[in-house]
Amino acid sequence: MDAKKLMDYKVDEAMDLFVLLKNADARVAKNGKRFLSITFEDESGEISGMYWDASDADVASFVAGKVVKLTGKRELYQGKAQIKIQSIRLATDNEPNDPSYFVPHAPEKRKDIKEEIEAFLFDITEPTWNRIVRNLLQRHAESFYTYPAAKTNHHAYAGGLSFHTLSILRLAKSVVGEYPGINAPLLYAGAILHDIGKTTELSGPVSTQYTTTGNLIGHISLIDGEIVSACDELKLDSQGDAVVLLRHMVLSHHGLFEYGSPVEPHMLEAEILHRLDELDASIMMIQGTLKNTPNGQFSERIFGLDNRKFYKE
Amino acid sequence: MDAKKLMDYKVDEAMDLFVLLKNADARVAKNGKRFLSITFEDESGEISGMYWDASDADVASFVAGKVVKLTGKRELYQGKAQIKIQSIRLATDNEPNDPSYFVPHAPEKRKDIKEEIEAFLFDITEPTWNRIVRNLLQRHAESFYTYPAAKTNHHAYAGGLSFHTLSILRLAKSVVGEYPGINAPLLYAGAILHDIGKTTELSGPVSTQYTTTGNLIGHISLIDGEIVSACDELKLDSQGDAVVLLRHMVLSHHGLFEYGSPVEPHMLEAEILHRLDELDASIMMIQGTLKNTPNGQFSERIFGLDNRKFYKE
Amino acid sequence: MDAKKLMDYKVDEAMDLFVLLKNADARVAKNGKRFLSITFEDESGEISGMYWDASDADVASFVAGKVVKLTGKRELYQGKAQIKIQSIRLATDNEPNDPSYFVPHAPEKRKDIKEEIEAFLFDITEPTWNRIVRNLLQRHAESFYTYPAAKTNHHAYAGGLSFHTLSILRLAKSVVGEYPGINAPLLYAGAILHDIGKTTELSGPVSTQYTTTGNLIGHISLIDGEIVSACDELKLDSQGDAVVLLRHMVLSHHGLFEYGSPVEPHMLEAEILHRLDELDASIMMIQGTLKNTPNGQFSERIFGLDNRKFYKE
Amino acid sequence: MDAKKLMDYKVDEAMDLFVLLKNADARVAKNGKRFLSITFEDESGEISGMYWDASDADVASFVAGKVVKLTGKRELYQGKAQIKIQSIRLATDNEPNDPSYFVPHAPEKRKDIKEEIEAFLFDITEPTWNRIVRNLLQRHAESFYTYPAAKTNHHAYAGGLSFHTLSILRLAKSVVGEYPGINAPLLYAGAILHDIGKTTELSGPVSTQYTTTGNLIGHISLIDGEIVSACDELKLDSQGDAVVLLRHMVLSHHGLFEYGSPVEPHMLEAEILHRLDELDASIMMIQGTLKNTPNGQFSERIFGLDNRKFYKE
Amino acid sequence: MDAKKLMDYKVDEAMDLFVLLKNADARVAKNGKRFLSITFEDESGEISGMYWDASDADVASFVAGKVVKLTGKRELYQGKAQIKIQSIRLATDNEPNDPSYFVPHAPEKRKDIKEEIEAFLFDITEPTWNRIVRNLLQRHAESFYTYPAAKTNHHAYAGGLSFHTLSILRLAKSVVGEYPGINAPLLYAGAILHDIGKTTELSGPVSTQYTTTGNLIGHISLIDGEIVSACDELKLDSQGDAVVLLRHMVLSHHGLFEYGSPVEPHMLEAEILHRLDELDASIMMIQGTLKNTPNGQFSERIFGLDNRKFYKE
Amino acid sequence: MDAKKLMDYKVDEAMDLFVLLKNADARVAKNGKRFLSITFEDESGEISGMYWDASDADVASFVAGKVVKLTGKRELYQGKAQIKIQSIRLATDNEPNDPSYFVPHAPEKRKDIKEEIEAFLFDITEPTWNRIVRNLLQRHAESFYTYPAAKTNHHAYAGGLSFHTLSILRLAKSVVGEYPGINAPLLYAGAILHDIGKTTELSGPVSTQYTTTGNLIGHISLIDGEIVSACDELKLDSQGDAVVLLRHMVLSHHGLFEYGSPVEPHMLEAEILHRLDELDASIMMIQGTLKNTPNGQFSERIFGLDNRKFYKE
Repeated sequence: MDAKKLMDYKVDEAMDLFVLLKNADARVAKNGKRFLSITFEDESGEISGMYWDASDADVASFVAGKVVKLTGKRELYQGKAQIKIQSIRLATDNEPNDPSYFVPHAPEKRKDIKEEIEAFLFDITEPTWNRIVRNLLQRHAESFYTYPAAKTNHHAYAGGLSFHTLSILRLAKSVVGEYPGINAPLLYAGAILHDIGKTTELSGPVSTQYTTTGNLIGHISLIDGEIVSACDELKLDSQGDAVVLLRHMVLSHHGLFEYGSPVEPHMLEAEILHRLDELDASIMMIQGTLKNTPNGQFSERIFGLDNRKFYKE
Repeated sequence: MDAKKLMDYKVDEAMDLFVLLKNADARVAKNGKRFLSITFEDESGEISGMYWDASDADVASFVAGKVVKLTGKRELYQGKAQIKIQSIRLATDNEPNDPSYFVPHAPEKRKDIKEEIEAFLFDITEPTWNRIVRNLLQRHAESFYTYPAAKTNHHAYAGGLSFHTLSILRLAKSVVGEYPGINAPLLYAGAILHDIGKTTELSGPVSTQYTTTGNLIGHISLIDGEIVSACDELKLDSQGDAVVLLRHMVLSHHGLFEYGSPVEPHMLEAEILHRLDELDASIMMIQGTLKNTPNGQFSERIFGLDNRKFYKE
Repeated sequence: MDAKKLMDYKVDEAMDLFVLLKNADARVAKNGKRFLSITFEDESGEISGMYWDASDADVASFVAGKVVKLTGKRELYQGKAQIKIQSIRLATDNEPNDPSYFVPHAPEKRKDIKEEIEAFLFDITEPTWNRIVRNLLQRHAESFYTYPAAKTNHHAYAGGLSFHTLSILRLAKSVVGEYPGINAPLLYAGAILHDIGKTTELSGPVSTQYTTTGNLIGHISLIDGEIVSACDELKLDSQGDAVVLLRHMVLSHHGLFEYGSPVEPHMLEAEILHRLDELDASIMMIQGTLKNTPNGQFSERIFGLDNRKFYKE
Repeated sequence: MDAKKLMDYKVDEAMDLFVLLKNADARVAKNGKRFLSITFEDESGEISGMYWDASDADVASFVAGKVVKLTGKRELYQGKAQIKIQSIRLATDNEPNDPSYFVPHAPEKRKDIKEEIEAFLFDITEPTWNRIVRNLLQRHAESFYTYPAAKTNHHAYAGGLSFHTLSILRLAKSVVGEYPGINAPLLYAGAILHDIGKTTELSGPVSTQYTTTGNLIGHISLIDGEIVSACDELKLDSQGDAVVLLRHMVLSHHGLFEYGSPVEPHMLEAEILHRLDELDASIMMIQGTLKNTPNGQFSERIFGLDNRKFYKE
Repeated sequence: MDAKKLMDYKVDEAMDLFVLLKNADARVAKNGKRFLSITFEDESGEISGMYWDASDADVASFVAGKVVKLTGKRELYQGKAQIKIQSIRLATDNEPNDPSYFVPHAPEKRKDIKEEIEAFLFDITEPTWNRIVRNLLQRHAESFYTYPAAKTNHHAYAGGLSFHTLSILRLAKSVVGEYPGINAPLLYAGAILHDIGKTTELSGPVSTQYTTTGNLIGHISLIDGEIVSACDELKLDSQGDAVVLLRHMVLSHHGLFEYGSPVEPHMLEAEILHRLDELDASIMMIQGTLKNTPNGQFSERIFGLDNRKFYKE
Repeated sequence: MDAKKLMDYKVDEAMDLFVLLKNADARVAKNGKRFLSITFEDESGEISGMYWDASDADVASFVAGKVVKLTGKRELYQGKAQIKIQSIRLATDNEPNDPSYFVPHAPEKRKDIKEEIEAFLFDITEPTWNRIVRNLLQRHAESFYTYPAAKTNHHAYAGGLSFHTLSILRLAKSVVGEYPGINAPLLYAGAILHDIGKTTELSGPVSTQYTTTGNLIGHISLIDGEIVSACDELKLDSQGDAVVLLRHMVLSHHGLFEYGSPVEPHMLEAEILHRLDELDASIMMIQGTLKNTPNGQFSERIFGLDNRKFYKE
């Protein structure tokens, strides 16, 4: 076994490594025997393969979220990479078996992201907003820095939620510097909180799914409800003037009713937050897609950007 | 002075009665003198008139929401009814001066509406929903039965909010009786709460306006936040299973993102609540408009119904 | 052979029963031999299976709409139920071979539906409407009570057309009882006629398809044309006042141009009919889909409801 | 009195002529006296004026649709032409008093239009279509050649309906000549019938309004119903093959559901009819608007063409 | 070998002919061997087939755009025609090997199309437009008469671009003849130039693809840029009055922003060009689709016509 | 006369100053005499007033774009500020009479804006783009720094075009600094050129109107055409690789077809330019509107932002 990552292997090269089972669906073949259709994943990307003649025990063991030791070979099938599996077994306690180690991560370190975000707290000079933001960062101290920002699309990797938040804060700082008259504390407080509801809407960084609560309430109303709850705990009036402004920031950040905001932006800072959110997401989606696009060609179409394809110089 | 209502007077008939100032705007005439453009209102309807040569004291006294003693004459101007004002003065404490007495009211008695709505509480057999509904009815014990359901459009009269709620409950009961398998407690709980946020979104039954909080948060997120707050008070988990279903009912009741719901209906009961809400509102808007339409003609266009006009047989 | 229905058999259980061929498509396998891809159906539901090595005679005999004696076994293939066919043969005249017996039916008895609908005729007190409705019910005496209301979606079963009509009439009666001032005879007459054009638009209860006439004219204009034709027969003026109102009811019942109505509702009763039509259809679609959804999960997406999925408690 | 038309008079020139009252609204002036706000019209165009101090008899006599003898003067008021009225009186039986003489007319003679349209009947070689078209042209022998094609917009003049029909037939003939394989009889039959329902939808060539029947049924369903009625009279099956194709032509001629067609075009000839209908209407709207536009400038915006304005070279 | 075309062979008939490789994709079969999935094409249409066990040399030789000698047999697979390939080899220099010979062609001769288009130059009597049109026809003397008008959809065959242009010119001539007051030179000049940018947007008549330049600029801006460039060459002001009108014609010919026009039509002639462009394209799309539709049935849905299907009598 | 600006005067205060005539419309009063309805403007804002009994000479002299000496008084009329004019006369050559001096200006100095924009040229390291940008800045050396960016809405003041351009460049620099992998030279070149076509689309900084060329071609195609023209002058291929990318930047900068871009962004840099353009415009529109909004209230609705109103804290 070697230190190679999943995507480092070439066609016909023998593979021997630890990888995560991102998906593992049990099916029945035409001959009546069961097999597993598996997607393997590590930080470098993902590839699929078939595990034939799966026993009941195999079906029970090899489920999404488990780390396995894989031997096999990389092959081409109908123009796509796939793995011909020789053997798989679960990683033991003495081996690397922490799933979170195998999912892609934000491009900066969790500790650095956390420090830089928390530095913005000093610029949130309005006490009500400052207390609410601190309270909610506390509640989600762990998940905020480990969750992705989405199931697919942009920032769909461990730590993506906080990295997306930080990217917006950095843009916000530039805007505050360029245009006089912006309420910076409000903009920063709204930016930090705007997507925290995703820690409830999504299931976590590994094999990310929408939760039932996420589907029925949505991250926008979830964070709005949490602000109310924080106010109750901090003995603040959840319909008081300052709180209403902050709630407006998070409620309106999708910009349009059609995108799920129950109110559209009616403050300068809300408009800016909405636009910076979209700007950062767009850049991430395009750069993520162009990574897999050869020079001089167009990428696949990006669903989140009106199904447009992008040209790579 | 007599017991006639505002709309009972005929053209050229002398008027002498107490009425409410619905609006009173101070303007400057071409000759440089100030005058007040006033809209008078009582239960029977509303008519406008000009109060010429208004003194500073007049401008300060005669403001929207005050009851006045009016003498004058009903006239026709460019085909429209108007009042030629002889005199107005504020009603004294010994005279009828309660503004709420002069605004239009729901067609049934507040006491009856209240009793019939509260009877539904016994059908909300799920304890979590029952406690939350009781808690919020308590909080808004006064305003829920006095507020209108809208600034204009349907149910725009004192008590309109609770009467609209009751009308939906009655329809809901018919639907529950006709179709097996509906979760009646959830449907009734959602119906009672769905518009209570309007007690914060609107300013009240007299001279109804949208509040700043209403504009920045909206009645859907307001009631969702109040459910969270009620949970905090009742020591319930605001993201627990039963509460999530109830929150979904109120969050989705506008049916479409475009109409301000942050989630669309994803439960049978949520779909039914949304459709009954629209059905009741449509009937009210059409009947309200047809009241002023001659037989054999089409009404004015109704903005809330795609600008359609309706034929009166 | 036993009295079990199609869906009563378990995996690996031997089957021996009469069923309907809902579809039977002849195809050529990779080895060059023909086979039939069959969907079997009875009241309990439907399952598919392959009939290998089909002779010319097989292809000619086993066509959609025939009842067959089937022996075989229920199996699982790629997570879906399917039938491994041992033998099929056409049902003889001495055996159950009436296809209409094998298609799903409305949840109430045809006789009861008919009686309850006809009882409403006594409430259609306007003579012109009454005569037209009776004339058209007469014309479609058979098909109105046997046709489905749709090819797929809601009420897509034998008798669905009349059951859908009755469900709307029941709702309409509740609305008439709750709101004063509704023209009940017009509402009931419109409700009974609104979808009768489907007896021409659709091919019938077995293997339902759109007819060419249905595709080129549509059930809305078909019923409008039939009202004209009934007027010609009854010596009524098809552009007379009462007839115009009834025609408006059926022409506008889809509510929006986008849904195929050549006029939008311009009468209170037309608006109500449209909304009750949608309400009943929505409940049927959701309940039909939830029947196959496990508790605590979301259903498949429903095309007719903006592709939304619904949560089953 | 002279032979000048309404628009021939210059500013400050004394006027003395017979004209039509297109509109005449009674109003009350600030001084309490009634006056009539009148729009005068003849073939050359229309101008407005005020008739002060109108007696009860005046209000009763001077109504829309009457021809009057007018003396007065053309003036400019706020940049617009208006008439200062000296006197008006009704035209007597010995004077020109036929209103239809004073409305704008189609640019070709009624007799020529009729002959050219009827010549197309010989190209409708399918007997069913031929009989239906002849039957309906017979029914509307008078109105088809005198009605406008619209209340405003394109062809809003006496004879506009038949002239619009003829223009489409001419275009259709070119298309049939250029593209092989078009069913010319079907295209011509559909073209002749497509707008005949407007003889019921509109009130007539003078002071054109939508009728109640027009508003509740619409000209598309009206003509479809008349085809059914013609079939009943001619003992043809109104759901027979040939009739279904013809009905499809008229039902689909607005092209899109949004424009009021209950079915969209599903035949080559239906698609062509729809497009030629729009092409002719567009040219008429633009040319009508450009007539009043100075060279080198943009016209007013045209509502029927997405509110676009057009440049006049 | 015989003179039969690809589509002339019946099922099970042996084939021996020269055909074009329209597509040839190399894939790997389940057994690990490579095969080519090929689409053959000649003027009569196209059929697919599999070429098993392809060597490296085969994959390198048999690429899209090559003419091959094919022997094999026509078969049916899953209801669709396919070719069982016995052998293929590249056509030699002594054999028919010009790919352009095998692609479908316009239904009229290139020489005739060219002559008829160039005859219109004499009707472009405005000298600026005449010089620009001649200059650009010169630049694209070859490609204009060989390119298709689209990758798929209408006129997707060699010469389709010029044939589509000619069809519009013919319609334009009819319109000019029927309606007085149209600027014929402007309409004809715009019609000739409107789609010439496709000679850069598309790759050519064989295996037509969008070019990178086509994707990034689009044929509308390409031809607008070429008009500027022609002006520079001819020493004309590219923002002069006459040029601005011509540029408006080509820029607005898609009619709506949504269809890629940067300005909507603001001249009568631009509106006409847009509508004739759509009319010709619609007829071509429908007739092309109906060619493969049996009588009495509906065609496949046509994407370019709102996904409608068309009935073939 | 004093140094006060137009908006510095209080109600009833006598005025004596030089101002610009922004608009001056001649009308006829009810008494038949002509008057001028004038809008006065200087850097501080604008107010209207009536100039009664205007002679022919007055109408000829006092036209939009002239500077006048005004004496009068500020008054209130129907709640709005207006000027009671005592006298106006044209400013002489010895007095301040340069209109451009009286229109609002960008908030930074023209010289500074120019220097900062030109500094970006050094970062456009790709020689083709650099040469084209320099060539076009040269062509519009004067107008680029004096024109507004719009007729109304954002940056509708002298120098607004270049200030808007600079604001985008500043934002672009921040984005380039935050996200690795952006082609900065392309982004800067696109940003500088994107709106230069407005120097032809608009009439200039005083009494700004759309030109005929602007209406028929639009600033997007105008600048695209100018790039082609610059290439012709610089002997560059206007369809060469580098030029195509630059043309794509300016063609796609409105982001959506609906907003007038003939292609949507298909490059990362094009997407960023589009979003920064909208971000800067939004901030300018909101801040401009909030300037006239009292604290604690909502602004007027902003047309360019979906008719939303904005709250001022």
